[in-house]
Amino acid sequence: MAQTDAPPLYLQIAQQLTELIRNGTLARGEKLPSVRELARQHGVAQTTVVQAYHWLEDARLIVARPRSGFFVAARPVQLPEPSTPRPLRRPREVSVDWLGQRILGRQQPEGMVSFSSGTPGPDLFDVDRVRRAVTRSVQRHRHLLCNYPSSAGHEDARRALARYAVGLGCSLDPQNIMITGGCMDSIALCLRAVTQPGDVVALESPTHFSFLEVLQGLHLRALEIPAHPRHGLSLDALQLALDTQPVKAVMLVPTLSNPLGSCMPLAERKRLAQMATRHDIAVIEDAIYNDLVEVPEMRRAVKSYDTSGHVMLCDSFSKTLAPGLRLGWVEAGRWSDKLRGIKDLQAGGQSAVLELALADLITQAGHAASMRQLRAAVAARMEAVRSTIATHFPQGTRVSDPPGGLLLWVELPRGMDAAALHDLCLPERILVAPGTLFSASGRFRNCLRIGMGGDWTPRHLQALARVGQLACQMTSEMPSRPHGGAATVSLPDAALGASAA
Amino acid sequence: MAQTDAPPLYLQIAQQLTELIRNGTLARGEKLPSVRELARQHGVAQTTVVQAYHWLEDARLIVARPRSGFFVAARPVQLPEPSTPRPLRRPREVSVDWLGQRILGRQQPEGMVSFSSGTPGPDLFDVDRVRRAVTRSVQRHRHLLCNYPSSAGHEDARRALARYAVGLGCSLDPQNIMITGGCMDSIALCLRAVTQPGDVVALESPTHFSFLEVLQGLHLRALEIPAHPRHGLSLDALQLALDTQPVKAVMLVPTLSNPLGSCMPLAERKRLAQMATRHDIAVIEDAIYNDLVEVPEMRRAVKSYDTSGHVMLCDSFSKTLAPGLRLGWVEAGRWSDKLRGIKDLQAGGQSAVLELALADLITQAGHAASMRQLRAAVAARMEAVRSTIATHFPQGTRVSDPPGGLLLWVELPRGMDAAALHDLCLPERILVAPGTLFSASGRFRNCLRIGMGGDWTPRHLQALARVGQLACQMTSEMPSRPHGGAATVSLPDAALGASAA
Repeated sequence: MAQTDAPPLYLQIAQQLTELIRNGTLARGEKLPSVRELARQHGVAQTTVVQAYHWLEDARLIVARPRSGFFVAARPVQLPEPSTPRPLRRPREVSVDWLGQRILGRQQPEGMVSFSSGTPGPDLFDVDRVRRAVTRSVQRHRHLLCNYPSSAGHEDARRALARYAVGLGCSLDPQNIMITGGCMDSIALCLRAVTQPGDVVALESPTHFSFLEVLQGLHLRALEIPAHPRHGLSLDALQLALDTQPVKAVMLVPTLSNPLGSCMPLAERKRLAQMATRHDIAVIEDAIYNDLVEVPEMRRAVKSYDTSGHVMLCDSFSKTLAPGLRLGWVEAGRWSDKLRGIKDLQAGGQSAVLELALADLITQAGHAASMRQLRAAVAARMEAVRSTIATHFPQGTRVSDPPGGLLLWVELPRGMDAAALHDLCLPERILVAPGTLFSASGRFRNCLRIGMGGDWTPRHLQALARVGQLACQMTSEMPSRPHGGAATVSLPDAALGASAA
Repeated sequence: MAQTDAPPLYLQIAQQLTELIRNGTLARGEKLPSVRELARQHGVAQTTVVQAYHWLEDARLIVARPRSGFFVAARPVQLPEPSTPRPLRRPREVSVDWLGQRILGRQQPEGMVSFSSGTPGPDLFDVDRVRRAVTRSVQRHRHLLCNYPSSAGHEDARRALARYAVGLGCSLDPQNIMITGGCMDSIALCLRAVTQPGDVVALESPTHFSFLEVLQGLHLRALEIPAHPRHGLSLDALQLALDTQPVKAVMLVPTLSNPLGSCMPLAERKRLAQMATRHDIAVIEDAIYNDLVEVPEMRRAVKSYDTSGHVMLCDSFSKTLAPGLRLGWVEAGRWSDKLRGIKDLQAGGQSAVLELALADLITQAGHAASMRQLRAAVAARMEAVRSTIATHFPQGTRVSDPPGGLLLWVELPRGMDAAALHDLCLPERILVAPGTLFSASGRFRNCLRIGMGGDWTPRHLQALARVGQLACQMTSEMPSRPHGGAATVSLPDAALGASAA
């Protein structure tokens, strides 16, 4: 499955241009050569240049202006990045905070300006494309409404998922793909296949709140491995853990991890797959954000480096297409039969008409363009939020700078208590998630996760500015940076480019 | 919740007529008084008489002939009923037969004439009614496709289920109803709420194969309580078990149990609810077949007698509307909060557009008529099957006579091995389920379950006759009863009335 070829032509061109932008040769706002011109210069097809420009657009390094061409993008807000936690020695029993369930539960509280969701709201999804696909599927496959579905999922849908997985760098057998009730359902099935109650599971620190929930539900112990805000799980720390602890599985989000937004470098992904083989442990890979990352290489799954079936790939389209379909999928490698048995024993299948609607959606010609649009909208929103944080939060605040997704990790100045800030925000009907929710050991007291999903409104940036003010009051000092500038409060959709310094 | 009023007027009339039919005053084929006439005689409204006649029709005691009126039905085939097993002393670890998973799995094997399914096939369901409801729901509630659903289920759907539950004799608070991925999902959630691995759960013997599967999946032990072929679970035997064993829960199908088709008398239902309160154990009631029973009183759930919240009601519409929706529901009584917590922790919600389509379907004006049609079609098929068994199976065969549903329990003469019969049938591409699959302790070796669901074809009655022949060959004697008669092989849909002796 591993591919070690040289990068494709378009990527070589994109990387050259990236270098020129990074070192200032191509300055902010400068117009790039036309597609035709660059194609001639490099002696390649124009489509190759278009591909390279799309890559750079995705990476937010250039912007397209209709009927004018491509321009070097304004540099987004620069803020220091959060720190990496130190390793912990022991696994912990998980006891999930009820507060976390209230803040991070899937039902957004009414009448609150909430920063709890990392899932795009219906305003960012193409609701009508989804509706048409479902209606068509119900019409065509109506007899499936009145039959028990296959517990593994409809064969045509599994084939579509295998085709989709090529985009993750994986060549999977549809027979080994199982459709589930969502990504967390996939992950819970994987954990049940490879662990017994009391076993130790290693995960990123900070980690996804739902990972802690599922570990608690299955009576598993969490071993928190430090994660770097840009590069994710530290494999050196993991190696140490594997050498000293009875770890049964590692669960992680290699691409746009939740809450950090980190992306594990490809070389590390390969190393992780090799570590799993060597130590005979399972890697449970959550690929739910892979379509949201702006750097196409980062879509490549750890699973693509797996030669021994030790990587279990879990995924769904709840962050990119339609959370309301309640569908996910899993390829469980060497544990595929075991997983199938567990699913047969207890859960049964999903609605086949929805499975086939999903298959239709992910194989439609317009899907890639739809993902591109989604990423652009999400990126615009994120810049607006980072600007607001830069302007309104106390001096010394650090913020993650993820290449996509709808989550930011905010590290407040040392000594600040994010739970107290949460309490201050609550009477103002503003909901933020304190960092301790993302750890089984009470870490990250001075951190916040800011989610930009759910029902996002113009009020959100105002509310975030207010959170910053409250934080400043808590530190009894206002930020010394000048206020105002281009960031401030504006409609998120209008924010791309508006955050230029 | 308990109601102890006198029976309603229509029921008093129906019961009087039942008596007259049973004692021969009204003979087979005799015409009943017209609705108008009977209404005048009793001094009641004509609608009351119509209701009484519908009840008698449901009970297969009378038949309606278009433009002629109502007639006393031909008496269905009389066969001795199966015996009741003796109680077992100890709970057993469950280890489900892989053969069972192959035979009884939800995917029907290709190219086989299968008697493994107890679920109506698409020929018996109103596929277009379901399709229209789903399409309408997707159209109206498209925004729900792109939102995470509530894990408990959409509020409107839960309200519809509470209204539906009135027909089961229950007055439930929609806030305590949770929508699940199916009836077995409901049951698994209940078991997880009230047991720990290793605990003892009492169930009917013989029992539903999936009950054994779910116990195995949760590492629970099964204590088999004898069940009577007509009256179901023996409460005396259960009482003995509760007095001597650490039983945590009782799981049962009070109405049309699987595989016996037994219905627990109402007085026993009340007694069971009281026993649960007294012993502080959970009763997990599976009401999935309640709409298929021909005697309306038997639709009343054990839950309707529950005054202390010890009965957990599990249900779905997979046997009556559309198994492909993958929706069930549960009211977990005093364990409602615990159940909600478990569901939140792990599974999340179902597709809300499907939930609302279901809500639409069960509250439509035509739903009751649709259920009546389904019951009539199912009853016709069952009579044809019982006739075939009477004609072709060895002398000494006993068969259940359930008031509805698509399952028959066949007890072959003592000493016969149903597993060997299964093996003889297999090369002829006929699939029957041996009785041992319905026990955790290898009982019922001389029994078969005959399911009349799935893709039912004219070949099925021929194949069943062949199973009988093979069974006769096994006993080295042909049946001494004369062959032929009206039963024999005929299209199932034409069989109502054709089975007259």
